Amino acid sequence: MAKKKTFRPKPRRPRGFRDRSGEEILAEQAMLRRICDVYASYGFMPLETPAFEFTDALGKFLPDVDRPNEGVFSLQDDDEQWMSLRYDLTAPLARHVAENYDALPKPFRRYQVGTVWRNEKPGPGRFREFTQCDADSVGAPAPHADAEAIMMFADAIRAAGLEDRDVKIRVSSRKVMSGLLEAVGLDPEDKGVSGTVLRAMDKYDRLGAEGVRLLLGQGRKDESGDFTQGAGLSDGQADHVLAFMEAASDDDAAAIAQMRGVMGGSAVGAEGADELDAIAETLAAMGYASRVRIDPSVVRGLDYYTGPVFEAEVTFPVQNEKGETVVFGSVGSGGRYDDLVKRFKGVEVPAVGCSIGVSRLLTALAARGEAQAARGPVVVLALEADRMPAYHRMAAALRAEGIRAEVYLGGSGMRAQLKYADKRAAPVVVIQGEDERTQGEVTVKDLELGAKLSETVESNEEWRSGQPAQVTVPEGELIAAVKRALGAD
Amino acid sequence: MAKKKTFRPKPRRPRGFRDRSGEEILAEQAMLRRICDVYASYGFMPLETPAFEFTDALGKFLPDVDRPNEGVFSLQDDDEQWMSLRYDLTAPLARHVAENYDALPKPFRRYQVGTVWRNEKPGPGRFREFTQCDADSVGAPAPHADAEAIMMFADAIRAAGLEDRDVKIRVSSRKVMSGLLEAVGLDPEDKGVSGTVLRAMDKYDRLGAEGVRLLLGQGRKDESGDFTQGAGLSDGQADHVLAFMEAASDDDAAAIAQMRGVMGGSAVGAEGADELDAIAETLAAMGYASRVRIDPSVVRGLDYYTGPVFEAEVTFPVQNEKGETVVFGSVGSGGRYDDLVKRFKGVEVPAVGCSIGVSRLLTALAARGEAQAARGPVVVLALEADRMPAYHRMAAALRAEGIRAEVYLGGSGMRAQLKYADKRAAPVVVIQGEDERTQGEVTVKDLELGAKLSETVESNEEWRSGQPAQVTVPEGELIAAVKRALGAD
Repeated sequence: MAKKKTFRPKPRRPRGFRDRSGEEILAEQAMLRRICDVYASYGFMPLETPAFEFTDALGKFLPDVDRPNEGVFSLQDDDEQWMSLRYDLTAPLARHVAENYDALPKPFRRYQVGTVWRNEKPGPGRFREFTQCDADSVGAPAPHADAEAIMMFADAIRAAGLEDRDVKIRVSSRKVMSGLLEAVGLDPEDKGVSGTVLRAMDKYDRLGAEGVRLLLGQGRKDESGDFTQGAGLSDGQADHVLAFMEAASDDDAAAIAQMRGVMGGSAVGAEGADELDAIAETLAAMGYASRVRIDPSVVRGLDYYTGPVFEAEVTFPVQNEKGETVVFGSVGSGGRYDDLVKRFKGVEVPAVGCSIGVSRLLTALAARGEAQAARGPVVVLALEADRMPAYHRMAAALRAEGIRAEVYLGGSGMRAQLKYADKRAAPVVVIQGEDERTQGEVTVKDLELGAKLSETVESNEEWRSGQPAQVTVPEGELIAAVKRALGAD
Repeated sequence: MAKKKTFRPKPRRPRGFRDRSGEEILAEQAMLRRICDVYASYGFMPLETPAFEFTDALGKFLPDVDRPNEGVFSLQDDDEQWMSLRYDLTAPLARHVAENYDALPKPFRRYQVGTVWRNEKPGPGRFREFTQCDADSVGAPAPHADAEAIMMFADAIRAAGLEDRDVKIRVSSRKVMSGLLEAVGLDPEDKGVSGTVLRAMDKYDRLGAEGVRLLLGQGRKDESGDFTQGAGLSDGQADHVLAFMEAASDDDAAAIAQMRGVMGGSAVGAEGADELDAIAETLAAMGYASRVRIDPSVVRGLDYYTGPVFEAEVTFPVQNEKGETVVFGSVGSGGRYDDLVKRFKGVEVPAVGCSIGVSRLLTALAARGEAQAARGPVVVLALEADRMPAYHRMAAALRAEGIRAEVYLGGSGMRAQLKYADKRAAPVVVIQGEDERTQGEVTVKDLELGAKLSETVESNEEWRSGQPAQVTVPEGELIAAVKRALGAD
């Protein structure tokens, strides 16, 4: 047959996208299951929305306020309408609620696990596709739904595997930030100067008071020499902002009282402080006060928050790819956004929710060395070509006992099969060659024990004569022997 | 503040995309978990690949051979390269294997659950986004890996919830189809006539021998009057094809023998029949013969199959949206595709795998009335505004016992709260108003029992006086009373 000259594409992935395998996926799935179990225990039900939304329905709620029009993957449908891949799970929730408003119970409480996409510049540890895991109450006014969201968030973070001492959950409010901005004579709705002030406040953890003071004033040059333009506040204004930042305390009531003092007579600020007081009261009554703190240094970049905001950060040191200890930052966050459904409905619908960054959480836990080593299946070697059904039967018998097992199905000989088992991290291989078969026996080789022993046994000869990591038993004892080998590790 | 005139997007989804919620998602997740447990028990490990692949890496393996260039969602990355959303999980697997060829164990055995997208015309029950659940062995030659794939597929279909009597699993082979085509004087590589013949054979189940004969000959007019052009075979050729189709038998060996007879001296046909014999032997030895049949009427539309192919169909009647009983078709399939990695590597890498259509399977099970009714969480009513922490404590106490529970967090009164509980399918509501509080009591109202009783209790008065579906107990007995109510249903 005549063939055309063949085009060979290069096997590669688009930038910022990755493959993942084995234990990493299993760990993420287990984490997601534990988080969703917490959400479900609070009465939230699952929702799934499509990957695509109409671009106009998604709106411009992208986290990066400096580039509100960028950051999404968009294409035109065959009816010429623009659609975009979702960049979070909140905008699709708003569309879903607006679309089904009358039929839904109010409050509408849903959780959602899903992939989201951001068309951003990828970097180390920065991907354009990742998983979010959200829970939201729509139609639930402040402050009780906020208190519940924070408690559930704390429970979910704990269920995800972070012990209380490893995490700091901080709560503030957009309203007290507005109160502060008003107190220093700024317009909270002014995205320019006010936005720069909020972004400076957001860096309090990383840069400390002096760094923030520079960003509030004329600007700051970082270690690399890059200059960030400041907000241009006066020293007095900056003092005011920093006094607000320093309101954090082990006593939530005291922190809120200090924030009130700094905000002066701002009405929106007082409203925010009242809500924080109510939240702090519930947290204390429910025993969450030690896990969650009212703290003015939480800002959250998202434009759509309108009330309380909260965030969880890991407190243990995390090293980056270069081995440097870094401020790892948020592994989850949430807040109130009463305006989101308004875009569609024209009326304000109170809503509050939280989102957990499972990939980041996994990265943090892995950086602490909590990633589990992979363990592969038991591998039954295939040594005699005409005896495949017998090997399949052994594997099936192991599976029937709940043991993962497979028959080697490649085309190679014994040495390659053992190498394969090693590569698969098989804990055990089952061997029945001609010798064993004629004796009605089977050999069970413990690869994990073998690897351990090979580090201590002195000579090759001693090793070969002893073969301490394998045992030959009658066929009928296969399962018992494999169980012993698996249990011994 | 001056506001710009507001644009109100219409809350709606792009065509062919849907929202799903509650029980449907939970049922799908449970099904996926059971299927993946089977895959894992056979030694397969999970893999995740990105939603996007470079378009040239995806190739043209779309199922619809009539439109090889259509059917994918594509866009240009900012470096001008075209990328597409994956339309299945096999093409990304091929890319992954080619990209990591030397590092992977061979055979490479992975399973993958993932969303796939097809840019096709949507219709009733036909979506542009759905979930696939695949397992594949790459680097495993026929026929033993094929036999294993078929057994695992049968186990997974059973784990998904289809009993053996509800499903028919049929096995054939691309090679015997090629053998048949050669026997009637056609070129198996000729996508034109040979493709038309295979598509006609694929309709044997739906149209029967006479319908297929028309499609093999001059063509066929369907009930709606639409004419499908035939393959233009002679009567003798059509007889030959139909003799092949009728080879199905309860005795696999007999079926394969009849296929051999029809194929005459075709070398590729004999090779295919030998492989089917080996597969049938293993299936019989492992006790799968009653669940799986060799049957020449399986064709599978996918262009890339090169050896054995198999397919599962439900056997119970399924009704469509209009209440008509329809041939539901495949809920899963698989086969051997030795050429897929060749596109990248230039060498043939033997591979075999299966894919289960979980959404279709769920639809089939739901059509049989096996969808479970939703049951919501216990709802604790919020009747006195200053007692929220007390309500939160009751809900937390229930959750600590493993009972899903929530506090009503909307802004409405008792009547609306009970309506909300109904809408949430809450089995039980917990009520502590002023009366109960002053007595140190709490009322547990069994909504499910109430709904049942309200159908039998005669008068409104009798109902009000009795209140048989609710009980008032001391606060300390809340949990016991809720458990009783939940258990009684």
